[in-house]
Amino acid sequence: MISPEKHNRMANAIRFLAMDAVEKANSGHPGMPMGTADVATVLFTRFLKFDPKNPLWADRDRFVLSAGHGSMLLYSLLYLTGYEDMTIEDIKQFRQLGAKTAGHPEYGHASGIETTTGPLGQGIANAVGMAIAEKKLTNEFGAELMDHYTYVIAGDGCLMEGISQEAITLAGHLKLNKLIVLWDDNGISIDGAVSLADSTDQHARFRASGWNTLSVDGHDPEAIAAAIEEARKSDKPTMIACKTVIGFGAPNKAGTHKVHGSPLGADEIAATRKALGWSEEAFTIPADVLDAWRLAGLRSTKARKDWEERLAAADADKRAEFTRRFAGDLPGNFDATIDTYKKKLAETKPTVATRKASEDALEVINGVLSETLGGSADLTGSNNTKTSQTKSITPTDFSGRYIHYGIREHGMAAAMNGIALHGGLIPYSGGFLIFSDYCRPSIRLAALMGIRVIHVLTHDSIGLGEDGPTHQPVEHMAALRAIPNLLMFRPADATETAECWQIALEQKHRPSGLALTRQNLVAARTEYEEKNLCASGAYELVSASDAKVSIFASGSEVEIALKAQAELTGKGIPARVVSVPCFELFAEQPDAYREAIIGNAPVKIGVEAGIRQGWDSIIGSDGVFIGMSSFGASGPYKELYKHFGITAEAVVAAAEARLG
Amino acid sequence: MISPEKHNRMANAIRFLAMDAVEKANSGHPGMPMGTADVATVLFTRFLKFDPKNPLWADRDRFVLSAGHGSMLLYSLLYLTGYEDMTIEDIKQFRQLGAKTAGHPEYGHASGIETTTGPLGQGIANAVGMAIAEKKLTNEFGAELMDHYTYVIAGDGCLMEGISQEAITLAGHLKLNKLIVLWDDNGISIDGAVSLADSTDQHARFRASGWNTLSVDGHDPEAIAAAIEEARKSDKPTMIACKTVIGFGAPNKAGTHKVHGSPLGADEIAATRKALGWSEEAFTIPADVLDAWRLAGLRSTKARKDWEERLAAADADKRAEFTRRFAGDLPGNFDATIDTYKKKLAETKPTVATRKASEDALEVINGVLSETLGGSADLTGSNNTKTSQTKSITPTDFSGRYIHYGIREHGMAAAMNGIALHGGLIPYSGGFLIFSDYCRPSIRLAALMGIRVIHVLTHDSIGLGEDGPTHQPVEHMAALRAIPNLLMFRPADATETAECWQIALEQKHRPSGLALTRQNLVAARTEYEEKNLCASGAYELVSASDAKVSIFASGSEVEIALKAQAELTGKGIPARVVSVPCFELFAEQPDAYREAIIGNAPVKIGVEAGIRQGWDSIIGSDGVFIGMSSFGASGPYKELYKHFGITAEAVVAAAEARLG
Repeated sequence: MISPEKHNRMANAIRFLAMDAVEKANSGHPGMPMGTADVATVLFTRFLKFDPKNPLWADRDRFVLSAGHGSMLLYSLLYLTGYEDMTIEDIKQFRQLGAKTAGHPEYGHASGIETTTGPLGQGIANAVGMAIAEKKLTNEFGAELMDHYTYVIAGDGCLMEGISQEAITLAGHLKLNKLIVLWDDNGISIDGAVSLADSTDQHARFRASGWNTLSVDGHDPEAIAAAIEEARKSDKPTMIACKTVIGFGAPNKAGTHKVHGSPLGADEIAATRKALGWSEEAFTIPADVLDAWRLAGLRSTKARKDWEERLAAADADKRAEFTRRFAGDLPGNFDATIDTYKKKLAETKPTVATRKASEDALEVINGVLSETLGGSADLTGSNNTKTSQTKSITPTDFSGRYIHYGIREHGMAAAMNGIALHGGLIPYSGGFLIFSDYCRPSIRLAALMGIRVIHVLTHDSIGLGEDGPTHQPVEHMAALRAIPNLLMFRPADATETAECWQIALEQKHRPSGLALTRQNLVAARTEYEEKNLCASGAYELVSASDAKVSIFASGSEVEIALKAQAELTGKGIPARVVSVPCFELFAEQPDAYREAIIGNAPVKIGVEAGIRQGWDSIIGSDGVFIGMSSFGASGPYKELYKHFGITAEAVVAAAEARLG
Repeated sequence: MISPEKHNRMANAIRFLAMDAVEKANSGHPGMPMGTADVATVLFTRFLKFDPKNPLWADRDRFVLSAGHGSMLLYSLLYLTGYEDMTIEDIKQFRQLGAKTAGHPEYGHASGIETTTGPLGQGIANAVGMAIAEKKLTNEFGAELMDHYTYVIAGDGCLMEGISQEAITLAGHLKLNKLIVLWDDNGISIDGAVSLADSTDQHARFRASGWNTLSVDGHDPEAIAAAIEEARKSDKPTMIACKTVIGFGAPNKAGTHKVHGSPLGADEIAATRKALGWSEEAFTIPADVLDAWRLAGLRSTKARKDWEERLAAADADKRAEFTRRFAGDLPGNFDATIDTYKKKLAETKPTVATRKASEDALEVINGVLSETLGGSADLTGSNNTKTSQTKSITPTDFSGRYIHYGIREHGMAAAMNGIALHGGLIPYSGGFLIFSDYCRPSIRLAALMGIRVIHVLTHDSIGLGEDGPTHQPVEHMAALRAIPNLLMFRPADATETAECWQIALEQKHRPSGLALTRQNLVAARTEYEEKNLCASGAYELVSASDAKVSIFASGSEVEIALKAQAELTGKGIPARVVSVPCFELFAEQPDAYREAIIGNAPVKIGVEAGIRQGWDSIIGSDGVFIGMSSFGASGPYKELYKHFGITAEAVVAAAEARLG
């Protein structure tokens, strides 16, 4: 039992670490950590199941600081509770180049940072994914191995962002009762009072979304504890509105937007020290307070050991599977399974849309990988992401492997990030490529964090036809290729689709997107190759000695390239074709390989039903590009290809014109 | 008074036009128009104030089909009510290349299409902007010139998208009581029943957001009429849940997801004809029904004439101002005002962050342009978008010219589209460049529609410093430049900022974004030039005869380019500097200008604190690029520039290395 006085001193330790670190950095957000210190202290000292010495313990509670600008709250907690890789020196280095203690919490920088936050609303949506993962894995491995809560501290900004609506309605629908959101209800945003811009009744809103809601004084530890206690018993997710004072303790600035995003200044810090009765120097925590925090950090040691015993005592297969899944390793027979499938494709040479080829590949993959968790943003039949193994998950039955995410691309992508971060599962989604725009912030964060999520992005060009320019991606391949550490694939046929899936699944530390067609494509690859040719990003599909023309293409335009090559050959013009399923992997190849693939043909032509941006790295700025330079149009797709001049004839004509 | 029988026949006219057009196109969405035909018939025959012969009448009610896949509903209504540019031939051309009747409604294709919809949730958020514009203009010009409703038909998909939450909470907060949303509550989405993915109590959700809500049987015309009547008297925005049957009338498919997105097929259409007692051939409307519809189209003729009389009778200045504003013309003294300001800048040569330079420019602009309507997504003090003229709009006082959009980038951008579409105002926003990702779908739609919205996007690179990679745009200039018909500006100093604002405001038919720095920049332009140099996209800032090195840079990196140029000159290496504030405008210049600006220096170097993608079009694929190739980092910005090698020293070293 922690006395009220001890609680206050423990919470004040957070407050002073936060204000002193921000002051030293001359940059940062002191108000939020000061305001939520009481809430966080109660959570971390009485409820959160975690072990700083075993930060990756699979069954730990997950804590998400959705209001990521309050990073010093998290760093303070990690230091105080005894995470070994978060020292007082790290705290002093807050916001300095190379420090673990970045401006916003960065996943991977230090143990205990469960996700990267800062872009508002992402954390709460990640947490929905974590709670989905927990419930799914509990169903699969039993509560003896998976039985934890997911806690979130979210601010007004998180709740105003639209993504939060997608997240909370999904969580409410799925009855994620072990998800508990602590809303830092401080009534302040950057412009001033929240009431300047918002009048939402958050309680009513959450209840309308299937949540339980509670209200507490966010500076009353017993009230906070009672609310969390109650929330843990709920059969629905719970939002606890914690009425707090931003910058609590700062005599002249607390409760105003002035404490949000700037240092308090020496005078106000001194006044706060006086007001809160804190006589220590900056970055100094009194021994009794630090001891109390370190003890709190040991609270779950026994639970962790008991869990390890249960894991050790589990059936050997189950233990091996659980361990493999949390290590993120694919099963040993994965590659062989793909290989067998590729042999079959080399025989059948199917003419098929790559979205359908993806479904066929998934049918094979989902048969051998128990960890894939599929879904779609209400486009299941269009994205082809559901296979025979993936029964739908329902609010009352998590034995399935497929989530109907609803028309919530952003919430879906952020939840997928949470599922991947949780561990034990590999999430893949379905959506239209055009609507990657709706979830781009979450895709970017997956890339920044370096996590394995896979986006199936169908209807990848004007090839979708009549739905028109609102649905036709033109700039999306370029825009997604622009995101660092994201692999974007655009396979040309069933074999490439299988290879791209294989590569995507093998990426432990980066996300992937597969851009797939609505329309049928003839097989570009007709011979079996053991090697995954897509793995080098680009490869020669048709060679020619003394080629005068090199044609580079991706996805559906490889068919056009092959047709043009044949026509050029017929005209006595030697030409080669290079398939380019993945720019990023090609960029990573050794110079010699890149040079060999790009080649020396005097005419280089790129063909893609998208914009040129990015293609110059392959065809050169003096190369010919056959693609789009405007938005698309509504009409039957074959007519659109002609209208926009993306045809074999156009390639041949361009080659001939260049050759003179 | 329309009899129940006549109402049914009028509604059935929509149903058959929709199903026959989809059948002929063998593509499209019949279910939605069939389901909402009764609701739309009541709205268009009894309430909507519109005049097909004067489709741009400024005070017409606005009708937004947010569920844009139901485009045949809108096209049918336009044809039936007598819009002259929507003929039965146009209906027959549904979804054909070049037709007005695109797969989804495209703004500009035909009169009466108030906005482009299809990407879900956008329309309802556009409508919020239209209702804001109406309320603002009523305040400014009086109810005698501006007094109309904004109606929306939205589907389940619109309400599930997060953007809808941003839109409805903003509308509720601002008490937009003349906004009426008719929710097509058919319980069906593409995957099946909405209940597969969502359990939201929409009534409770809207009420929590400050809305009035009503429920009706969406096939009972009198109930629909009574609800709209009641909604029009509300002091809050109103959501009317219209319980409908998707595909109403199709005996075997109605009420299922099978009628959503595919033709019904000849048999089902025949069965529907029988069931609804419709004996006409496809595309044939019985004369009495067409007459009744055409009469409905004449309902507001008198109201329009009365309005014209009121406009004619208005004070001459007011009339001129109203007319100018709705024509979208800038005032005659605009250019001279900017010119005077540029002269002042040439004298003061301020060292200033471009976000602050933008505020200074806006102070001048807002003084001469009464139509600008500013705002920010809760970053007012960071985006510097508020000037002395722009008092905040509040729910009870629309005399201001500034909207606290809240932490709702997506809702903001979509509302801005609605404001621009409404006419009479030029909306500009404030946000961080990084969070353009949050509102990218709306920015894209602005570009597709060709409308004048201006996004102020500050904190435009690693130059923002300590907030770190979650807040540092790296790929965003490239990703935004990828969007066709969008002008992206990245000015280098106060003069360029003023020039870029001038260009952006002059664009009647395309949106613009201004990427602006957090950090101070020294003046790059030190001499007064009457000509708007930024208007050609790129121009020579420092020339050199027989230049060995050409340095191209944008925004904050122009300062680096100038420093490098001076160093190179000091070393006896003649170098020139080209400022590139706008790629898109440069791409539009005549070849001769482009070639002259790019020049023939053996070494071409591009400098931008973003990724290379796109730069090859200027520096060539063999050019040197000094910029980013990864995510950023948290730290003081000067250290970050050194860390990532974006310095004058790096430019000089690269030039020397290339020159050998």
